[in-house]
Amino acid sequence: MSTQSVLIAGRWRAATATETFHGENPATKMPLEDRYPISSWADCDAALDAAVQATSALRTLGAEKIAAFLERYAERIEARAAQLVTMAQAETALPAVPRLADVELPRTTGQLRQAAAAAREGSWAMPTLDTKANIRSYYAAIGPVWVFGPNNFPFAFNSIAGGDFAAAIAAGNPVIAKANSSHPGTTRLFAEAAQEAVEAAGLPPGSVQLIYRTSHADGERAVSDPRTGATGYTGSRSAGLALKRAADAAGKPIYLELSSINPVVILPGALQERGDQLVGEFATSCLMGVGQFCTNPGLVVLLAGTTSERFVAQVGEKFRAAPVGTLLSKAVAGSLAKSCQHLAAAGAETVVGGSAGGGAGYSFANTLLKLPAGQFLKNPEACQTEAFGNVSLVVVADDAKQAGEVLDHLEGNLTGCVYSDTKGSDEALYAELAPRLRRRVGRLLNDKMPTGVAVSPAMNHGGPFPATGHPGFTAVGIPASLRRFAMLECYDNVRPNRLPPALANKNPNGQAWRLIDGKWTQADVNT
Amino acid sequence: MSTQSVLIAGRWRAATATETFHGENPATKMPLEDRYPISSWADCDAALDAAVQATSALRTLGAEKIAAFLERYAERIEARAAQLVTMAQAETALPAVPRLADVELPRTTGQLRQAAAAAREGSWAMPTLDTKANIRSYYAAIGPVWVFGPNNFPFAFNSIAGGDFAAAIAAGNPVIAKANSSHPGTTRLFAEAAQEAVEAAGLPPGSVQLIYRTSHADGERAVSDPRTGATGYTGSRSAGLALKRAADAAGKPIYLELSSINPVVILPGALQERGDQLVGEFATSCLMGVGQFCTNPGLVVLLAGTTSERFVAQVGEKFRAAPVGTLLSKAVAGSLAKSCQHLAAAGAETVVGGSAGGGAGYSFANTLLKLPAGQFLKNPEACQTEAFGNVSLVVVADDAKQAGEVLDHLEGNLTGCVYSDTKGSDEALYAELAPRLRRRVGRLLNDKMPTGVAVSPAMNHGGPFPATGHPGFTAVGIPASLRRFAMLECYDNVRPNRLPPALANKNPNGQAWRLIDGKWTQADVNT
Repeated sequence: MSTQSVLIAGRWRAATATETFHGENPATKMPLEDRYPISSWADCDAALDAAVQATSALRTLGAEKIAAFLERYAERIEARAAQLVTMAQAETALPAVPRLADVELPRTTGQLRQAAAAAREGSWAMPTLDTKANIRSYYAAIGPVWVFGPNNFPFAFNSIAGGDFAAAIAAGNPVIAKANSSHPGTTRLFAEAAQEAVEAAGLPPGSVQLIYRTSHADGERAVSDPRTGATGYTGSRSAGLALKRAADAAGKPIYLELSSINPVVILPGALQERGDQLVGEFATSCLMGVGQFCTNPGLVVLLAGTTSERFVAQVGEKFRAAPVGTLLSKAVAGSLAKSCQHLAAAGAETVVGGSAGGGAGYSFANTLLKLPAGQFLKNPEACQTEAFGNVSLVVVADDAKQAGEVLDHLEGNLTGCVYSDTKGSDEALYAELAPRLRRRVGRLLNDKMPTGVAVSPAMNHGGPFPATGHPGFTAVGIPASLRRFAMLECYDNVRPNRLPPALANKNPNGQAWRLIDGKWTQADVNT
Repeated sequence: MSTQSVLIAGRWRAATATETFHGENPATKMPLEDRYPISSWADCDAALDAAVQATSALRTLGAEKIAAFLERYAERIEARAAQLVTMAQAETALPAVPRLADVELPRTTGQLRQAAAAAREGSWAMPTLDTKANIRSYYAAIGPVWVFGPNNFPFAFNSIAGGDFAAAIAAGNPVIAKANSSHPGTTRLFAEAAQEAVEAAGLPPGSVQLIYRTSHADGERAVSDPRTGATGYTGSRSAGLALKRAADAAGKPIYLELSSINPVVILPGALQERGDQLVGEFATSCLMGVGQFCTNPGLVVLLAGTTSERFVAQVGEKFRAAPVGTLLSKAVAGSLAKSCQHLAAAGAETVVGGSAGGGAGYSFANTLLKLPAGQFLKNPEACQTEAFGNVSLVVVADDAKQAGEVLDHLEGNLTGCVYSDTKGSDEALYAELAPRLRRRVGRLLNDKMPTGVAVSPAMNHGGPFPATGHPGFTAVGIPASLRRFAMLECYDNVRPNRLPPALANKNPNGQAWRLIDGKWTQADVNT
């Protein structure tokens, strides 16, 4: 089998590479057939040159063509659905049905279509007009965007089809995708569909490019290159922080989603009122996708008492009874075992599980760990080690005061949940604890597990460091996710014929919401 | 004279300091009477603790009280205007009238009042409601904000009274101000007025705190401390980059305004049409505030020809004829001389000026330098050395192509201007050059010098690195400047009685614009 081609400047061509890598089927631990190149800097360099050209061309082309591309692309993904699902299942061991075919694929095409609608409509850019001073500004494309996708959503967060991709393109930027090494074949299939859609929609070559892998040094060089506009990264904390250092030093925006243990606080009244139901909700959320969700509830805070003891015991039973799923890769399995060791070293006891194996291929027993809050507070950093997979840690506090201290010692997280009873007996505890959890998380939930991430304008899939790199941005939710890949462009006294259409007196499509002299409106400027 | 006190946790008290410093009158080169402490870490630590407490208290207090504080503060500044002007003139040598008393002071109080109105009205937070999914989000206070103010606007950008201060407070955060070392007395007077207003408005102690100076190491520790929410910095590039490194490594947002040479492109038709007028506009803008504006036009790009030669000669005459102003400090004078040497080493010829002195105290001759574009392109980095003061560089390109190359080699800047004729003869050149300038600047102007920075919602006082640290944010312009000091808070399925008022079904004041199910409206949610 020959080595697969990279997609650069609108052409599939051999990479400039001296090394290659293979995908692996995590369910069989067998290497997959195809070979993929580890590109040298020359490929990155060529991709950046093509992307710079595409940046100018996309700007001239306008939003309608970009929207059309995103829609054509969604259609082509649907046409290749069976092929994509088969490939992704082989590379990730995620279930073909319902997960890949019925949940993640529709989510992916739905995101692309939402992004298309946002690009066409134009409100995302927040056109702001001060007609008296004749100063006008909006968010506009920032230039070539690198997208590094994670291992856990081969479709919905794929570097060449997922949320960051859709947002960056819709904002008017070319994307250079760096495939996740655990699903290069899936990414290649997406890239083929994307390139067909680029050609069908008449986008410039270099609008969508694909490189499978680079050295770490070239990755750092890429995100900090003068030609780069911005970067979207979802993945491990260590690799992300290395890219962040490089991008920050060059003053290049980088949006990262790094790690999160998604604390869930279950108050005593809720356990009293509906303990059995909560056992089910929690266990389901923990084991969903073999625990490999960014918003997987990895930490539960309970107050000491018999209802809490019963909750832990019942969750333990559920974990023991549930089938053990296959993890995404050898690396995930290795890292999960190591995280469990770290947590054990910090004092966590094993309620159930705790050892590798038990499922097909790379797997690890469904694991519930337990720790007194006093122990947590002795070493809060170690006790917050992310165990990416089907492992959760219960922290039992002596009282509300100690539970509050645990919350005060949390790192930044994507989400935080509080469950309370419906009659009001938990209200005082909620008032004491929720504001402290609030400061540590991007999304605060009530009576709901965090694993569902709705693609809603009001969603925040973000949060304080180290969950992400900046607590003001969200990776999910249109239109806000588009503004990450934009710069603020101000036009001061610029002549009417030279203004971008979005800032002209006439609302170009009659639909974009614009802030004109302090009022949001879809109307034209009164002239 | 004893050492002045710092303002920490609502009390004026002796600093924990082993060293002190003096202000200096730049017009006389004489030290000013008062002595100010260089705080040790203990002061920063105490200020952070107080600010953390203030953060929670401010949240409970609500926007109305914060707005009232900003308004009381503006009044107290007006009541102390004469004292502030006298002190600032002594410390900066800026003219009392009109600059300090009639321009900068009203701008400062105007900003505080605009920030008050924005806090009260609430639209800045962009409340976004998805009523079907019951997910709601908005921007909310990020926590303690450090503000490092620059030397050049002792009022309007003062760390305890200026734009960053007003924005951070209006967004609901406590501010710890680090005085600029060139005007500690002015900053102290502001802090006195601010603390009186804090008490009058019933804000928590620690809402506004003042430290005069710290070691560089403590400054870096401060911006990266876990208790810190974010930092606003305006000042020199080297000090700013050191703070940026520290804040970035800790994942703490930092907004920087570092340097800008504000390129001005004057096309041949404009020179032909109204050359004399442009000579006047340009020379006035260059020498305004002795060239010590962030938006001072430090670089002019002309196309070779007799009109350009005449422009250069005439500007040279204006520069020679104009009085030489006093620079802000010894450091500014030293750095200006050094920058001129750098530019000369890179090949710039002196048209007029080029040497220190000529005015009262610290001064430097009004200086016009000239360089062929070919020379610029040999070492674009050195030729973009910021000469902060009354020095500008003219770059003369052989043709449009070469002018375009100069623009392609520009670093990020706050502003860029293009002057063209009114009859259309420059239109083709504009179309070729403006898009390339556009990518390098935050604000693009037509037929207007960049030195005026209107406090408008459509303003962008920002731009690509190294002008600032992120091209999506503006330091001037309300409401956008407030959102820098905020985090995105999402509420997913949170019970109605627990939602912040801004996200409730009922619009709390009937005035805030909220994005409800895709439409901007001031109405309540339809229930």
